[in-house]
Amino acid sequence: MRSQPSCYSSSSSTALKDRDVASYDPTKYRPLTFHQSVKAFLSGQDTPRAYLERCLETVAEREPVVQAFAARNDEAARSAADASTQRYRDGKPLSSIDGMPIGIKDLLETRDMPTQMGCEAYANNFPKRDNAAVWALREAGAVVFGKMVTAELGGSHPGPTTNPFDPSRTPGGSSSGSAAAVAARMMPAAIGTQVGGSIIRPAGYCGNVALKPSQGGINRGERQTTSMSTHGIHAGCIEDMWCAAIEIVRRAGGDRGSTGLCGPQTPPFAVKPSRLMVLETEGWPLLDYATQAAFDNLLASINAHEVTLVRRQESPLVEALETSISNARHDATTITAWENRWGHRNLVNEHADGVSERIKQGLAHAESMSHEDYELLLLRRAQAQAAHAATTPVADAAILLSCPGPAPVWSGDKPGQPLAPRPTGDAVFNTGSSMLFAPCVSMPLLAVGGLPVGVQLMGLPGEDARVTGLARWLLEALDPVVG
Amino acid sequence: MRSQPSCYSSSSSTALKDRDVASYDPTKYRPLTFHQSVKAFLSGQDTPRAYLERCLETVAEREPVVQAFAARNDEAARSAADASTQRYRDGKPLSSIDGMPIGIKDLLETRDMPTQMGCEAYANNFPKRDNAAVWALREAGAVVFGKMVTAELGGSHPGPTTNPFDPSRTPGGSSSGSAAAVAARMMPAAIGTQVGGSIIRPAGYCGNVALKPSQGGINRGERQTTSMSTHGIHAGCIEDMWCAAIEIVRRAGGDRGSTGLCGPQTPPFAVKPSRLMVLETEGWPLLDYATQAAFDNLLASINAHEVTLVRRQESPLVEALETSISNARHDATTITAWENRWGHRNLVNEHADGVSERIKQGLAHAESMSHEDYELLLLRRAQAQAAHAATTPVADAAILLSCPGPAPVWSGDKPGQPLAPRPTGDAVFNTGSSMLFAPCVSMPLLAVGGLPVGVQLMGLPGEDARVTGLARWLLEALDPVVG
Repeated sequence: MRSQPSCYSSSSSTALKDRDVASYDPTKYRPLTFHQSVKAFLSGQDTPRAYLERCLETVAEREPVVQAFAARNDEAARSAADASTQRYRDGKPLSSIDGMPIGIKDLLETRDMPTQMGCEAYANNFPKRDNAAVWALREAGAVVFGKMVTAELGGSHPGPTTNPFDPSRTPGGSSSGSAAAVAARMMPAAIGTQVGGSIIRPAGYCGNVALKPSQGGINRGERQTTSMSTHGIHAGCIEDMWCAAIEIVRRAGGDRGSTGLCGPQTPPFAVKPSRLMVLETEGWPLLDYATQAAFDNLLASINAHEVTLVRRQESPLVEALETSISNARHDATTITAWENRWGHRNLVNEHADGVSERIKQGLAHAESMSHEDYELLLLRRAQAQAAHAATTPVADAAILLSCPGPAPVWSGDKPGQPLAPRPTGDAVFNTGSSMLFAPCVSMPLLAVGGLPVGVQLMGLPGEDARVTGLARWLLEALDPVVG
Repeated sequence: MRSQPSCYSSSSSTALKDRDVASYDPTKYRPLTFHQSVKAFLSGQDTPRAYLERCLETVAEREPVVQAFAARNDEAARSAADASTQRYRDGKPLSSIDGMPIGIKDLLETRDMPTQMGCEAYANNFPKRDNAAVWALREAGAVVFGKMVTAELGGSHPGPTTNPFDPSRTPGGSSSGSAAAVAARMMPAAIGTQVGGSIIRPAGYCGNVALKPSQGGINRGERQTTSMSTHGIHAGCIEDMWCAAIEIVRRAGGDRGSTGLCGPQTPPFAVKPSRLMVLETEGWPLLDYATQAAFDNLLASINAHEVTLVRRQESPLVEALETSISNARHDATTITAWENRWGHRNLVNEHADGVSERIKQGLAHAESMSHEDYELLLLRRAQAQAAHAATTPVADAAILLSCPGPAPVWSGDKPGQPLAPRPTGDAVFNTGSSMLFAPCVSMPLLAVGGLPVGVQLMGLPGEDARVTGLARWLLEALDPVVG
């Protein structure tokens, strides 16, 4: 199955080393975490306000290049951190994330900052209300730190954010600012959203831990724009990731009609998998050699821990699942394009100059579709979900890459030429799980050419806590592979 | 199964005649229709602008008592009607509803009128954008005529609207203004929404034709607040009802992940049912004698047309369906309360004085629930849906009342006393179909004590067009029963 470098040849290991910009070393990189500070908050050795100030210092240092924020309200954040400090002084924190500075992807409404969605048509949009998840974070005592840059309307047209480990590269999208801010240690966690691959792919490119929950797992509030969109968490560690997610869902529940994320109030214990199914997806042939080799080395290391690996060649059920998602990138993109048809047409009619050419091209595609085209895609999605459910007896979870190698270089569209495809990277390892409504946890387990490459575990819908426990075991048991 | 009048004793036939306020005679009442005017628009004998002016005359006459409007923008409506007039002059109407004046329930956002949701906390809320369905109506050339009074936030706390056939009675809710304006002939159609029974019940109380589509059938846009909410249509006739619905869905589709209303661009042909299953629901024992008798007379008349009626006593599958929805009023109300928990808590926290005591009581109920309580209700809902699907071989559709007798008298809460239960009437004949995600068409086929009482046909999800064709046959073949 190995292939020579193809569309990602510019990201190959050799090319990277030649350019001498790589700076990610997973053996040295220490993510910013929050849960370890709680003890010091309670004892008075540290405070949420001091924690926030340290974050602000990092912001001052990194933000000029990383450009992760779409908006900030430092006064409100400091005031929230002071209130949290007082609660710890009183011995009465509201939750496990009381005082946690957390960024909000700028697709979600916030009552104290504008919501501009990376789209000129929404310039100065300020609805002055909180998205359900934002409201829940505030109720839990978290410090809403800022609005994080999103690719336009959650699509692929990029904002200004750069990859913290190489500013010539994309941080991924559409949760660009959320992923980059966590990776740059500006904050311990941030909210992202995913429709195709917008949480897990940037987490993979930035070396974050991240959760894309089961469809409906976290209440999207007003942001129920498409049938595969989810809120999720970027974090520096799996404990903070879980706590942020569960504290939101305790207060705001899941989407209407969904049971919502279930699990313990504390991070799930590490659980060793006995069998993992290895998924190639349609992304495998697109990989550069160094990424394939690093992933194979990681699998060998997992296997050395006596975890059985099940591949498509060994299991007709895995093969059936692979087949059912073999066109997922096209299918997911097209489902979403159709679902955005009304909203985007409305927006283009009202603000033709405020919407990018990328959005307009997607709209033209959607408007060329018929109702039956969409129904057929929903059928294929349901069939893929059936194939996924059928793998229940095969393995505890699936393991696959979070992204097709390290983040690609992005230097902008070239005037007079067609728009560059996928400027925030390729969601080819993510659209399958989106179609499957499946929970995914991304883990920073690979470095390729000095840049992070994430690996994800994927479970069946509803297995968020179980997948998190399995991911915790992998993170604790394995050394990252440096390729 | 017959019982004496119970909670609706004040609405019984005798009581009504004594009060001498009844004014609904289905043999004389002529609803306002639109589709019959299209020919005159095309020939130039009539124009959409003149049609709108006639509506405005009726508004001037009836609105002081009916109070159906929450907001109007006559200038915008006249301008839209003029544009439509020009299109007919040019022989180029945009759709079958080009020029149709249509009211919008005030839960849906409109870019040229405020959206206040019958709730003080939303006073002067003016988001200046169109809900998906509103946008689609404008694209189809319809004349957006005004915002129609809704019970607060789509719940049960009533607005000022009165029943057009007796101002001491409720028009039903929460689509109060939409139902009353159509019944008062102020407009040929209006958009309503239903979560428990907010489209079909007021249609029943007001003598409208109405469609509550299959769950997801009409794109709700930003209004995806609960898992059982739908947009639907109140109209004076089934042709206008269907055309308004299908022209919206042609342009804005269904909800994300749903296939959306399917069917012909012209109203479905009348189709005679061969078998109808008669559903009692938990509402039957609550009926007054006159309503029971009128409904039985209607069933006898249907039977006389050689349509077989199948009841719970004759079919274990019908009995299983009845059993599965026998607690639907509680279950649906509780599911919705839970789903509104976040939004209502947020609202109460922000605007404690701007939200009614009724909303606060519902919120307290929701906040006493656990996550598992909600999951159990979702399971019951799924089981009821399975029971409904199992009736496929039994009958072409189900027939049941739209409301438990004529609209009850509503004279306001009494200071110092507990809040009156269900001031907009009882959704007991509607919560079942909401739980089943089923399409329903309400038909003005009964008069009881001089007031309308609707009868509905209910199909399986996706059967909207088929149920509309069956309803059309009943409306054409039967004389209304005057009880």
